[in-house]
Amino acid sequence: MNGPDGLGGISRPGRLAAPGEGITPDELALAARNHGLPLEALRYDVTPPGLHYVLVHYDIPDASADDWRLAVDGLVRTPLTLDLAALRSLPAVTRRVTLECAGNGRALLTPRPVSQPWLVEAVGTADWTGVPLRVLLDEAGVDDGAVEAVFTGADHGVERGVEQDYRRSLPVAVAAGDVLVAYAMNGAPLPPQHGYPLRLVVPGWYGMAHVKWLRGITLVDAPFDGFQQAVAYRFRWDADDPGEPVTRILPRALMIPPGFPDFMSRARVVRPGPVLLEGRAWSGYGPVTRVDVTTDDGATWSDATLDPADGDPSDGHAAAWRHWHAPWTAAPGTHVLGARATDATGRTQPLTQPWNRGGFANNLVQRIPVHCL
Amino acid sequence: MNGPDGLGGISRPGRLAAPGEGITPDELALAARNHGLPLEALRYDVTPPGLHYVLVHYDIPDASADDWRLAVDGLVRTPLTLDLAALRSLPAVTRRVTLECAGNGRALLTPRPVSQPWLVEAVGTADWTGVPLRVLLDEAGVDDGAVEAVFTGADHGVERGVEQDYRRSLPVAVAAGDVLVAYAMNGAPLPPQHGYPLRLVVPGWYGMAHVKWLRGITLVDAPFDGFQQAVAYRFRWDADDPGEPVTRILPRALMIPPGFPDFMSRARVVRPGPVLLEGRAWSGYGPVTRVDVTTDDGATWSDATLDPADGDPSDGHAAAWRHWHAPWTAAPGTHVLGARATDATGRTQPLTQPWNRGGFANNLVQRIPVHCL
Repeated sequence: MNGPDGLGGISRPGRLAAPGEGITPDELALAARNHGLPLEALRYDVTPPGLHYVLVHYDIPDASADDWRLAVDGLVRTPLTLDLAALRSLPAVTRRVTLECAGNGRALLTPRPVSQPWLVEAVGTADWTGVPLRVLLDEAGVDDGAVEAVFTGADHGVERGVEQDYRRSLPVAVAAGDVLVAYAMNGAPLPPQHGYPLRLVVPGWYGMAHVKWLRGITLVDAPFDGFQQAVAYRFRWDADDPGEPVTRILPRALMIPPGFPDFMSRARVVRPGPVLLEGRAWSGYGPVTRVDVTTDDGATWSDATLDPADGDPSDGHAAAWRHWHAPWTAAPGTHVLGARATDATGRTQPLTQPWNRGGFANNLVQRIPVHCL
Repeated sequence: MNGPDGLGGISRPGRLAAPGEGITPDELALAARNHGLPLEALRYDVTPPGLHYVLVHYDIPDASADDWRLAVDGLVRTPLTLDLAALRSLPAVTRRVTLECAGNGRALLTPRPVSQPWLVEAVGTADWTGVPLRVLLDEAGVDDGAVEAVFTGADHGVERGVEQDYRRSLPVAVAAGDVLVAYAMNGAPLPPQHGYPLRLVVPGWYGMAHVKWLRGITLVDAPFDGFQQAVAYRFRWDADDPGEPVTRILPRALMIPPGFPDFMSRARVVRPGPVLLEGRAWSGYGPVTRVDVTTDDGATWSDATLDPADGDPSDGHAAAWRHWHAPWTAAPGTHVLGARATDATGRTQPLTQPWNRGGFANNLVQRIPVHCL
């Protein structure tokens, strides 16, 4: 950070941490603002306010619902400008959706991409209420030449040298599918940090697609090449690789760490005897069909019981996590617990860490060392 | 973390970071769970849900309001067991209170005490509703021999080798003063992470006194010597020093970082011209009477305008922060902004960092480098 020699002077390229390099002050500043789900909060079907993970790229905008406008423009027959009252007058739907940050797991990678330093907890589930995006697209009338819809948020900042409003796109076919323009979370107006007063919700996709503080939808005739689409959120193996886009959420199971913690190390203590292992599992590619549990650091695995999905998939709960549980009898000693989700497409979680330069879509099996005393 | 050789094996003494030692994985795990107030959220008089700072020592308990009981016992004439309905049937009061973690600022210290790594953002303001503690003490009838009330939370864990429920005490005279047993935050039931269904609120005191998941109040005839009172939360200069207790909140002003940020470094960019500098200031010792602002890293200072306190002090808003603002004309270059609060007792913020081994009550003036481009 060296002053007024252009944006480059204050905004550096992405980098990897050096071997043994501790978490940096920049990473800590992000961790102090953004936060994950405390893992014991996996106990709630719907994550209570303030426990759902939050990632804000820039600042939370100072927004007022009273004067908020959503523009739908570009390659449409009838450009629209909608206020909140207009959106609320349209038929509303509510979807229960599990949202996960694409960077979840990043801080556990070696080498570690220097960015928001998530461990495994960048997840949450909410009931989102709003207008199906296709209703707005139908009302505007999308031109045949449109290939993508570009979504613009009100959050403004600099990232890797590029000044920008946060913008992401979706192919028109995806945008016209199962996507919401949401104005309520768990039955209340969106909290500021979750996009008040409007955000996109794209069930099954990582968080970067769910544009917050949504103020514009522009239909365009070529794939969007903005920063968050063409530079960030791509699977790359070196800095020059153009990469492949990050899209849907890979399967993951998380376990509620059993017993009680040490304050500083978060090491877990359980008493000898029966312990219920439980947690949640989800995938953006299809229903989770199986969760395997290990209590010996992966040497052996056994099936967990998957509870029925919370509601029928046809009523909109297919994009939410499923609860699972498995009995365990703890014996004195140290045990490493883990759980592994598999979905209906056959996708599952890796047992050894794949790696990419942005640290995206890491779904390595969680390890929970537990001390039975 | 080395297994079943007793609690000592998983729970280590406090330590200081080595020179140049980056933030450790243990500190990151705490930062990923607990979170501060994103500084732009200083714009809200009352901090919206999920933006108020949170520090949970162990796990958030799995609590149900339906079967929650609060016991008042020890040196009382009539021990009480109260459910939520009983508490709600008593006269309720609402207090607007600014709460700050005693460890706020710790991660900026050199050497850095290894614990929850707060920068400056461990603060928030809420409207707390509940029963004055004195009403419960009067109903129970405190014996003349009682000197302290010990408050027990339902959160259980290990800390520096000591297994415990979270417990803190207050002298009887303090407990019978301006203290609430709160069951609502901003008009809604307490969120799980803020103590659902019951917590103590001790206006003007650092957060460690506001015992969450409150299940017991015990009147005792000697000063409480539990871990959180006699070992943690003390001003000490070396590990053997018995130290002095941490109590009330020292004055602090925070500024909303102006302009817009770089994602990774959080470095700020402003445009040349008029910029409104604004923020909040608070003290647990008395009303804030003055805020000074610098735009040249402390070389010169000027008075900010303090807005009237939000409500008359006599109606219960004296424990909440005050909004302040100051005009600034930004010129191209790099500037270091800061603000300094002084309260009615004459206490103010230090310009150079004092230090104590726990990293408590650090109210060094905030530094915000800003790049005017």
